[in-house]
Amino acid sequence: MSAPLQAEPAGIGATMHGWVRDLFPIRRSLSGPGVRQTLDYLAELMPGLDIHEIASGTEALDWTVPDEWTLRAAHVETETGARVIDLDDHGLHVLGYSEPVDAWMDLETLQEHLYSLPDQPEAIPYVTSYYKRRWGFCLSQRQRDALRPGRYRAVIDADLKPGVLNYADLVLPGESDREILISTYICHPMMANNELSGPAVATALARWLADRPRRFTYRFVFVPETIGAIIYLSRHMDEMKARTHAGFVLTCLGDDRAWSFMPSRRGGTVADRAARHVLERFAPGYTAYSFLERGSDERQYCSPRVDLPVVSIMRSKYATYPEYHTSLDDLDLVTPTGLEGGLAMMQAAIRALEANRTYRATLPGEPQLGKRGLYPTLSTRESGIQVRVMMNILAYADGQMDLLEMAELIGADIFHCAEIAERLCAHGLLEIVPAPERG
Amino acid sequence: MSAPLQAEPAGIGATMHGWVRDLFPIRRSLSGPGVRQTLDYLAELMPGLDIHEIASGTEALDWTVPDEWTLRAAHVETETGARVIDLDDHGLHVLGYSEPVDAWMDLETLQEHLYSLPDQPEAIPYVTSYYKRRWGFCLSQRQRDALRPGRYRAVIDADLKPGVLNYADLVLPGESDREILISTYICHPMMANNELSGPAVATALARWLADRPRRFTYRFVFVPETIGAIIYLSRHMDEMKARTHAGFVLTCLGDDRAWSFMPSRRGGTVADRAARHVLERFAPGYTAYSFLERGSDERQYCSPRVDLPVVSIMRSKYATYPEYHTSLDDLDLVTPTGLEGGLAMMQAAIRALEANRTYRATLPGEPQLGKRGLYPTLSTRESGIQVRVMMNILAYADGQMDLLEMAELIGADIFHCAEIAERLCAHGLLEIVPAPERG
Amino acid sequence: MSAPLQAEPAGIGATMHGWVRDLFPIRRSLSGPGVRQTLDYLAELMPGLDIHEIASGTEALDWTVPDEWTLRAAHVETETGARVIDLDDHGLHVLGYSEPVDAWMDLETLQEHLYSLPDQPEAIPYVTSYYKRRWGFCLSQRQRDALRPGRYRAVIDADLKPGVLNYADLVLPGESDREILISTYICHPMMANNELSGPAVATALARWLADRPRRFTYRFVFVPETIGAIIYLSRHMDEMKARTHAGFVLTCLGDDRAWSFMPSRRGGTVADRAARHVLERFAPGYTAYSFLERGSDERQYCSPRVDLPVVSIMRSKYATYPEYHTSLDDLDLVTPTGLEGGLAMMQAAIRALEANRTYRATLPGEPQLGKRGLYPTLSTRESGIQVRVMMNILAYADGQMDLLEMAELIGADIFHCAEIAERLCAHGLLEIVPAPERG
Repeated sequence: MSAPLQAEPAGIGATMHGWVRDLFPIRRSLSGPGVRQTLDYLAELMPGLDIHEIASGTEALDWTVPDEWTLRAAHVETETGARVIDLDDHGLHVLGYSEPVDAWMDLETLQEHLYSLPDQPEAIPYVTSYYKRRWGFCLSQRQRDALRPGRYRAVIDADLKPGVLNYADLVLPGESDREILISTYICHPMMANNELSGPAVATALARWLADRPRRFTYRFVFVPETIGAIIYLSRHMDEMKARTHAGFVLTCLGDDRAWSFMPSRRGGTVADRAARHVLERFAPGYTAYSFLERGSDERQYCSPRVDLPVVSIMRSKYATYPEYHTSLDDLDLVTPTGLEGGLAMMQAAIRALEANRTYRATLPGEPQLGKRGLYPTLSTRESGIQVRVMMNILAYADGQMDLLEMAELIGADIFHCAEIAERLCAHGLLEIVPAPERG
Repeated sequence: MSAPLQAEPAGIGATMHGWVRDLFPIRRSLSGPGVRQTLDYLAELMPGLDIHEIASGTEALDWTVPDEWTLRAAHVETETGARVIDLDDHGLHVLGYSEPVDAWMDLETLQEHLYSLPDQPEAIPYVTSYYKRRWGFCLSQRQRDALRPGRYRAVIDADLKPGVLNYADLVLPGESDREILISTYICHPMMANNELSGPAVATALARWLADRPRRFTYRFVFVPETIGAIIYLSRHMDEMKARTHAGFVLTCLGDDRAWSFMPSRRGGTVADRAARHVLERFAPGYTAYSFLERGSDERQYCSPRVDLPVVSIMRSKYATYPEYHTSLDDLDLVTPTGLEGGLAMMQAAIRALEANRTYRATLPGEPQLGKRGLYPTLSTRESGIQVRVMMNILAYADGQMDLLEMAELIGADIFHCAEIAERLCAHGLLEIVPAPERG
Repeated sequence: MSAPLQAEPAGIGATMHGWVRDLFPIRRSLSGPGVRQTLDYLAELMPGLDIHEIASGTEALDWTVPDEWTLRAAHVETETGARVIDLDDHGLHVLGYSEPVDAWMDLETLQEHLYSLPDQPEAIPYVTSYYKRRWGFCLSQRQRDALRPGRYRAVIDADLKPGVLNYADLVLPGESDREILISTYICHPMMANNELSGPAVATALARWLADRPRRFTYRFVFVPETIGAIIYLSRHMDEMKARTHAGFVLTCLGDDRAWSFMPSRRGGTVADRAARHVLERFAPGYTAYSFLERGSDERQYCSPRVDLPVVSIMRSKYATYPEYHTSLDDLDLVTPTGLEGGLAMMQAAIRALEANRTYRATLPGEPQLGKRGLYPTLSTRESGIQVRVMMNILAYADGQMDLLEMAELIGADIFHCAEIAERLCAHGLLEIVPAPERG
């Protein structure tokens, strides 16, 4: 009875891939001009997106906003002036948050500042040093092996000094002030699945939701990972704790190879249940990871003193696919169909949350459907299933089970159940119970 | 340690089969003289059975009592006067609730009013049209294939007009006004497993219970299926909701081929637990169906606004055996031993409910059984098991676990446990806890 | 990350085996000089052990303290004066609690007073008749088969008359008056696993705990099985019910062949959880028995009106190994390594209980470990696991889950978790929640 998984609007996969291509070359990090460029681009797509800045040195929960990093250029050259590493070739060539350097040294000394992956000789690794001052270059093992003994000049033209850190948010109000949180990160340079798929799907979701009636209020958050979520919580925790009905960290939503799920800390929240319901329906072979394998901003949102019901629906999960955190996580790995699937699954989860109400039958016994025209006029296999689902909804609508539980129990999808439940409400056979909201 | 499953009194299987044979030819339907004849017959067997009537057009919950149907005769004849279908040959030949007809037509037109089963060419199907006015004949596919083109006269001599609908009940008071509901239906013509096995076993149960001390009050209900249960609820719902401890819909209790169980809507009630306990003990291979596969009056009794703890113990469940709702569900399918097994299992379930109390040990530590003569004087394998069960009952009697739970945990049957528990009570080693009654 | 299972102090296995050897020949029973000798020996090892006596005929719960039994000598001789059975050969040769006898009889009459095991022809069985007056001899089947027809003189030089019954206890106070109960029995003559392993491990535990800081108070109880536990409860039940946090019956802790577990009546207490945690960590193939297979003093401590959270960690469980209750349960069966393992597992369970606190994170979000020096300075595989366990403890410390639950969830051992949790407390990142004490 399920419609196939389908993203809205049609063609959105190609559109999202276009955004990812535009954003790919920008040099993002925790802070700096790349983050601002990225947020400006997104603000064009989402009118109303608020871009915020917070000064270096500001306290945020247990943390301090770090200095701002501005990377202008970087290369390593030989005595003949040949550039053996050049930031212009690839945005991952510089260790994230490198301090500036301009010095001659022999190969041996240079080696202490080089990062490569012996097991993946073609890949440039992604390495950062946010909280300890270092400088360094990342390069492929193949490149590294080609370096000959001699004198090298390492140049990193960068600032690492008090400035600001940027993030953005957008709140789409709904009928209720209960909120759905959508959080994603914008701090990785030149990576596609483990970075840009998140903002791309979040943006498409925000545009889709902007045009729909919304039962819930939606809070979109675009932050540098970890420190950004911490800063955001330091400013909005009380309202988020009071209002969040369900939340999603959007990450790794762009490839075609897998479906994955990260539960909330204790599991069993309505966010967990909605996500699992749509994954089971549309991607029954999906991998359910344990919270022990967490790795993105659910680390902050689900921490015991915050305790929001936040989960992740993913394609190939971070730290599980070979291209993760390397230059191979690129525009080929992330595809229009991969992104479109990721968006479609998130749209399904959101539609499931919007549809998830608690109903109670109004009459004792089975109602007479015939006199209300609720029996299909043409009897087909399809209509037979419809009647059975209708009778089951009436049979289980005890005012305690919500529609997600009921759909699981009946073995139908919540969208089909919701359609029928609404029809039964219209005929006065069901009523909506103002269930105590569960997070 | 279990005694074999045994119905009481001896020979009751043959007696019940006699009742079924007597009742088989009567033309029952939702209403009409066949129902009254059936109830009159049962009233002879159960002194005190109250037969009620309710006028057509009366409102009952969401429903209206339908017109009464009186079927006097019916046949289809050829121009030569040969009767190709005749109600006198089989009670299923007329579509239930047919309106009267007397008309000549060609075979083509007649065909629109015929019902048969191509896959079961020897079987006459059971078809009704209670809520849409039609007329029709049911016949075997073999009969139908033999009809030659030509003119036919279809005659149904019937009334379908305001009258009454009948049902009956019998209440056997017990020590407590907590009730066990036994409900069965009397609306199917000439079918044995999916009809008469229910009233036969219900009648035998009522006669058996009438002569026994009863902890609970027993409410026996004989109604036309669905509409009858709805009417009954419309008149007795409040008291039934207040008092019902456990309930059983008796249906499909007469063949020898299977044991089946239909749980209550949410499961886990004491009715579910007692039924499963005896089925597991005496018919360990029984099939436990889901409430999603319900189909009899538990649809009304277990509906959310009624919510009684009602289950069914069955032999071959309705809608699962090939003869269901055809002329093959007959006096050969239902056997004396099949009926006797059905009765015996229901008696076991009732004895389990009667025996199910919550006990609490009166003394700390293990009591000294020897000084009370509670150790068997002759030590046999049997007596060793007895002592072990006795020690286990003393060990678990914490005033919270009822005897059904305890028996399941110990792996003994509740009858054996109850015997020992009563002996321990008599010796002051256990006391009965007036547990909050659970439905 | 687990240290291997290790008893303290080093060499304690050999020491315990020495105690067992010393105690083995003493003729213990429910009462009498053998029990006093045994308790005197233990008092030498445990300063502060209080030896109590209670007069025959005293009421204790449902029981009466039996007469005291003093066995001086016993033998069976032929007309030629040859001793075919002699208590001096083996302490099991006399039926426990035999009344005195000195009489000539033929072999046929003698046979009525002999006990042997046809299936284990070399073993002398252990048989007692505490509550019915009898006399008898136990012997190997081989010995019995060698008896020739003729006249025999049976001599048992014993008293069975009012006296006292002895038991002992020792309380080691801790920071809290919540108690850990350690109970063992001292009533079986010349058996090693199913007797002396218990007092030996209990003694080693008491000596080990005497020198350690103790969060909990420890109550050590040395009683004759069953009647002794009943007497002890009759005098201490109220305080034990009020204070007992967890308890262990020490029995069958001395061989090398198996690991076994006896749960409390309902299971799931902190005693069950601590014992299972250490068994799963250190003896993953251990056998978890059901409470239905109980057989020692948990029968009293877990009885419904007492209801203490008492379990047993065992090596080969009573009634499951072939030497049980025979002369083959001897000083070869019980080994220094077997005893040492039993002690080590009990020490692990106690350390788990002492370490089991409930923690709550003090800060929202993940804390910054770096600035507190909580990141290891040297990054190794070991330190990586350490950091992960630290992050997981912070992630789950919600003030509801205790450390045992958390360790199970994280898949780490509680000792490692406790170490890290304490470090996090010292840094102000966790606080201890004064959890409602659970038994």
